[in-house]
Amino acid sequence: MKALVYSGSGRRSWTDVPDPVLVDPEDAVVQVDAVTICGTDLHILGGDVPEVESGRVLGHEAVGTVLQVGSGVRQVAVGDRVLVSCISSCGRCRFCRIGQYGQCLGGGGWILGHTIDGTQAERVRVPYADNSLHVLPPRVSDEDAVLLADILPTSYEVGVLAAQVSPGDTVVIVGAGPIGLAALITSRLFSPSAVIVVDSSPARRETAAALGADVVCGPDDDLRAIISDRTGCLGADVTIEAVGRPETFELCADLVRAGGHVANVGVHGAPATLHLESLWIKDVTITTGLVDTRTTPLLLRMLAEGKLDVSGLVTHRFGLDEMQDAYDVFSRPQESQALKVVLFGEGGI
Amino acid sequence: MKALVYSGSGRRSWTDVPDPVLVDPEDAVVQVDAVTICGTDLHILGGDVPEVESGRVLGHEAVGTVLQVGSGVRQVAVGDRVLVSCISSCGRCRFCRIGQYGQCLGGGGWILGHTIDGTQAERVRVPYADNSLHVLPPRVSDEDAVLLADILPTSYEVGVLAAQVSPGDTVVIVGAGPIGLAALITSRLFSPSAVIVVDSSPARRETAAALGADVVCGPDDDLRAIISDRTGCLGADVTIEAVGRPETFELCADLVRAGGHVANVGVHGAPATLHLESLWIKDVTITTGLVDTRTTPLLLRMLAEGKLDVSGLVTHRFGLDEMQDAYDVFSRPQESQALKVVLFGEGGI
Amino acid sequence: MKALVYSGSGRRSWTDVPDPVLVDPEDAVVQVDAVTICGTDLHILGGDVPEVESGRVLGHEAVGTVLQVGSGVRQVAVGDRVLVSCISSCGRCRFCRIGQYGQCLGGGGWILGHTIDGTQAERVRVPYADNSLHVLPPRVSDEDAVLLADILPTSYEVGVLAAQVSPGDTVVIVGAGPIGLAALITSRLFSPSAVIVVDSSPARRETAAALGADVVCGPDDDLRAIISDRTGCLGADVTIEAVGRPETFELCADLVRAGGHVANVGVHGAPATLHLESLWIKDVTITTGLVDTRTTPLLLRMLAEGKLDVSGLVTHRFGLDEMQDAYDVFSRPQESQALKVVLFGEGGI
Amino acid sequence: MKALVYSGSGRRSWTDVPDPVLVDPEDAVVQVDAVTICGTDLHILGGDVPEVESGRVLGHEAVGTVLQVGSGVRQVAVGDRVLVSCISSCGRCRFCRIGQYGQCLGGGGWILGHTIDGTQAERVRVPYADNSLHVLPPRVSDEDAVLLADILPTSYEVGVLAAQVSPGDTVVIVGAGPIGLAALITSRLFSPSAVIVVDSSPARRETAAALGADVVCGPDDDLRAIISDRTGCLGADVTIEAVGRPETFELCADLVRAGGHVANVGVHGAPATLHLESLWIKDVTITTGLVDTRTTPLLLRMLAEGKLDVSGLVTHRFGLDEMQDAYDVFSRPQESQALKVVLFGEGGI
Repeated sequence: MKALVYSGSGRRSWTDVPDPVLVDPEDAVVQVDAVTICGTDLHILGGDVPEVESGRVLGHEAVGTVLQVGSGVRQVAVGDRVLVSCISSCGRCRFCRIGQYGQCLGGGGWILGHTIDGTQAERVRVPYADNSLHVLPPRVSDEDAVLLADILPTSYEVGVLAAQVSPGDTVVIVGAGPIGLAALITSRLFSPSAVIVVDSSPARRETAAALGADVVCGPDDDLRAIISDRTGCLGADVTIEAVGRPETFELCADLVRAGGHVANVGVHGAPATLHLESLWIKDVTITTGLVDTRTTPLLLRMLAEGKLDVSGLVTHRFGLDEMQDAYDVFSRPQESQALKVVLFGEGGI
Repeated sequence: MKALVYSGSGRRSWTDVPDPVLVDPEDAVVQVDAVTICGTDLHILGGDVPEVESGRVLGHEAVGTVLQVGSGVRQVAVGDRVLVSCISSCGRCRFCRIGQYGQCLGGGGWILGHTIDGTQAERVRVPYADNSLHVLPPRVSDEDAVLLADILPTSYEVGVLAAQVSPGDTVVIVGAGPIGLAALITSRLFSPSAVIVVDSSPARRETAAALGADVVCGPDDDLRAIISDRTGCLGADVTIEAVGRPETFELCADLVRAGGHVANVGVHGAPATLHLESLWIKDVTITTGLVDTRTTPLLLRMLAEGKLDVSGLVTHRFGLDEMQDAYDVFSRPQESQALKVVLFGEGGI
Repeated sequence: MKALVYSGSGRRSWTDVPDPVLVDPEDAVVQVDAVTICGTDLHILGGDVPEVESGRVLGHEAVGTVLQVGSGVRQVAVGDRVLVSCISSCGRCRFCRIGQYGQCLGGGGWILGHTIDGTQAERVRVPYADNSLHVLPPRVSDEDAVLLADILPTSYEVGVLAAQVSPGDTVVIVGAGPIGLAALITSRLFSPSAVIVVDSSPARRETAAALGADVVCGPDDDLRAIISDRTGCLGADVTIEAVGRPETFELCADLVRAGGHVANVGVHGAPATLHLESLWIKDVTITTGLVDTRTTPLLLRMLAEGKLDVSGLVTHRFGLDEMQDAYDVFSRPQESQALKVVLFGEGGI
Repeated sequence: MKALVYSGSGRRSWTDVPDPVLVDPEDAVVQVDAVTICGTDLHILGGDVPEVESGRVLGHEAVGTVLQVGSGVRQVAVGDRVLVSCISSCGRCRFCRIGQYGQCLGGGGWILGHTIDGTQAERVRVPYADNSLHVLPPRVSDEDAVLLADILPTSYEVGVLAAQVSPGDTVVIVGAGPIGLAALITSRLFSPSAVIVVDSSPARRETAAALGADVVCGPDDDLRAIISDRTGCLGADVTIEAVGRPETFELCADLVRAGGHVANVGVHGAPATLHLESLWIKDVTITTGLVDTRTTPLLLRMLAEGKLDVSGLVTHRFGLDEMQDAYDVFSRPQESQALKVVLFGEGGI
């Protein structure tokens, strides 16, 4: 079959690789009907994730059709339309037993497109299929569902729930890429008074406004004054970091009020400065985390019920064999205005 | 009366100042029967807290006898033995109304010995007396009670409760000064499997062991190996920073397990480095804070009931007019082995 | 002045009583600009609340203008437009210090129109004015604001927050009177998948549908089948009792799923049967409570920001001196279709 | 092999039954080394649990040695010493995925000795072995470990954790049978100010006192006065029902303070009266539940570390083939003073 293969820093090819086969009785093999590219894939190609070996098929987000299941698989059957989650779960370890699948000690966690071959291919082997695939409700489109493989549960769990966004809150989201916009969408489930989205790109600010941001701010806006004005000079109840750079994290830590929450969602490659000389007295909670995808069944159900609207996040659509073009578009967002790009296989809808 | 007056960086005197008087109807004037010195007072003398003006009487911890109350005071009467809390509370602002007195917006918070004259004196004026003084149960000694003015609630609220210490946890406390030892005592209320106390001073490690630390570590111990061995290589469930230096905070952030808590209790004068390049994926919660003293009534009651044992924290005792000697002893802990020093007025017991 | 005076079971009069005066330094006297009648007032007239003495002025909800304040009042000034909350708070007792004002031990709690004279009058004395009055933002109308004196915080705190309504939940509200409808409005702040409102009155069901109920059910609907169908046979995540009768409470306990919450908001005059023979194994949480009004400042702010829409709850409007007519209308809801009735004084807007 | 077989109401026999065999790839067969009898077994024999069919082997608590495992079992190997938990978990359903195994929808939950053959036998088949067996640490005796099959996690999860027992609390436990005493032991992990244990049996009260109860009360004690005196007339912070009768539940609901918790742990066969006419205003939380055994790994670890002391709960010891004698003793506790009885197979230690 064809797959997007990583061949060391900066090098990727859409090339022939052997078809995946069942290795373990709890495996499934899934035909990829829709797949997307994540900012993390660009980090890998940039050489920032050294544990990814040359020859690895990338990708950790997909929707597909089950082709084969091992003898130990009970919840998923051949022919099922499924969401391939970015997180696999052994279902037995200390962390999986309490719903913290991202920290799986039994061979799961983030493995697809990382330590084993991933979803940017015509087919993919998924370990621990029962706890790593989600059967799709009929009314959900592949394009909508694929957004629940990673960015929706990530922004919801690591951002919104970790920060305990509550009715009436002033929420600041730094970064209006796919994760930041998904944090905007999921923050609004809790009826905050204001979601303020900060990004340097005018196009992304426009999208944020269209998706319901109460205020959008760029580099020329006086963000501190805007927040101060809305909060009686206290600062933001919640700040969500959705970029992954020291300066955006430090901005989040600076803007939060006494008693507030800073939720880091961004993937970082360098340390940040934590201003404890002012924060020590300020009752601040800072959280980090990898998504567990424990809310994926809930989000899928809300999507099917029409209670979660993810439209507006997909900007470009391709055929699966246009993978290289899709990477080109996704890796130049300032030119292409790309947010999420989705590639459809022949079975995709 | 006599008081310990700050006269700019490095200068203190035990000298005559005017007697305090009632300024506001909600004030009380309290005769100081027992008072102690805090590490924060040394920071002030070091010039690290620039908002403290020359001429200020220092001190924010005391036990005393009420001499006068304003017309708006209802809960406290002349003659009552009271604990003077390090935190004053207006009782009306947004934060006081939810028990977050440390962040009081109505003129309270940490004011004694900071923005108004404090407790290292023969008498002290306490604003918002109803919500800032605690009437002492009869069975509690002044020496025990004065430890509840700051260090016990601080270590309990900002350390143990913020970090959600739970039965079976492995807790690491970095720093075995008064605050670290109080965190040890209050951690044990939740039956952790192990409290590991880290300090460079052999004498303080010995005290920690005597107060119930399961393990004490100094600079020559392989702390990582010890924690790893006890936690199946996961790391500590909770780490509590009780020193206030970048390197000790960074140690706490390094030792905590995925899914664990870092509670900063130390007073910091400089920023720390936050290694987001490894922490972003690790589900870590970091908290900071000023004590609210919302647990002071509970801790006082447990002290009176014999359910909280604070013995072992006071190493030196003085008469109130030996204030300068007490400062000398307290500011040279390596020589003096001082933990808490208590000074008794004529009414002290 | 004129006031609505209770003269024993079944007897009320709109009659002359002495003007209220300041009794305590923390009192305020407020001119009533808008006032409403509560179901609880009908309970009192029915003789169900025996601690209410003959001669008492009823009413615990109002909006008004401050006429006088005692010397101990700091937050409220003569001329301020204020919300008179159904709960007074001493600000000093064990419960007030943690935000649980409904249980105030210092002479507050529910006192207006209960143990002291209330708001159904031209003027009212409000004890502990700083913690019992809320200054109104300019953009909020009297009619909207008066709904925040009791029913909005009650349904939000005792219903929605106690039951932990969460995104995606199936919520059943039994009773579509003012409290049930306010629970519907405030449940929706958390984006439940479905709010199912149950009431025997077609008109109230219609109002519930207009206010956003996803499903409305009457006596002829197969409620169990509807819930079962929506929840994969599990039952409701949350049930909220908003009537105050044994059979409606029992219905709530019957409809909730394993692991779900039953929040009792209704005022009860008789015991209910708790079917522990089936509930013991079911992981159910049942909560009861009197409102604390700790969320009133939040709800007022959201109202001013346009983030909380309370329109549709007031069905009838009167002049203050039409108090007896208002009672007649309010006490015959089946004929009058009354939900909340509001009476306006000369200053009302 | 021999097993204790239920043959309809009141009839049990220790008789030959076929040896258990692996039925499903995730099964294990375990040799029973130590087993105990639960009050629930007596309920079954009393005919109170009609879904138990005639011919069923009873028992849901054991320690044993793994004899065989199916091909899908990964965590447990032949020869392992294991705890057989009273709750089995499929590891895949909605409830198992969040740690609520007691409500398993995938064929687990409480099944042993209930819907499939149980542990009162020489051997037992355990479904979903990976998530239903716990490998024992070497230092733990069979006798101590078997107490963690049911009563310790039940009292801890459904009693102590559900009720949120906290330092300084006044906790009332009604019933000093095995579950009530286990609630006493596990309550003390949170350093309550007082645990008050209520039982009509002088012997059980004596045991409670020996296990650390601060106060023990019998029918002649003025329980209300004792609680009132200790709590400033407020009532108990927490009451735990550990009997399973309407009157004991009603006592718990009556003794709790405003803002307190009632945790029902007892197995009930009849409804209770809930006095909503007084409780509606009182901010009470009532919880029920079946154990999930999610804390069993923690409790096992604490047992191995010497941080949990369960001695004092086992009063009688038998050989496995003395099963009928053990039942006789256990079912007449007033004569025999039995708490837990443990039966040892040949492999038991």
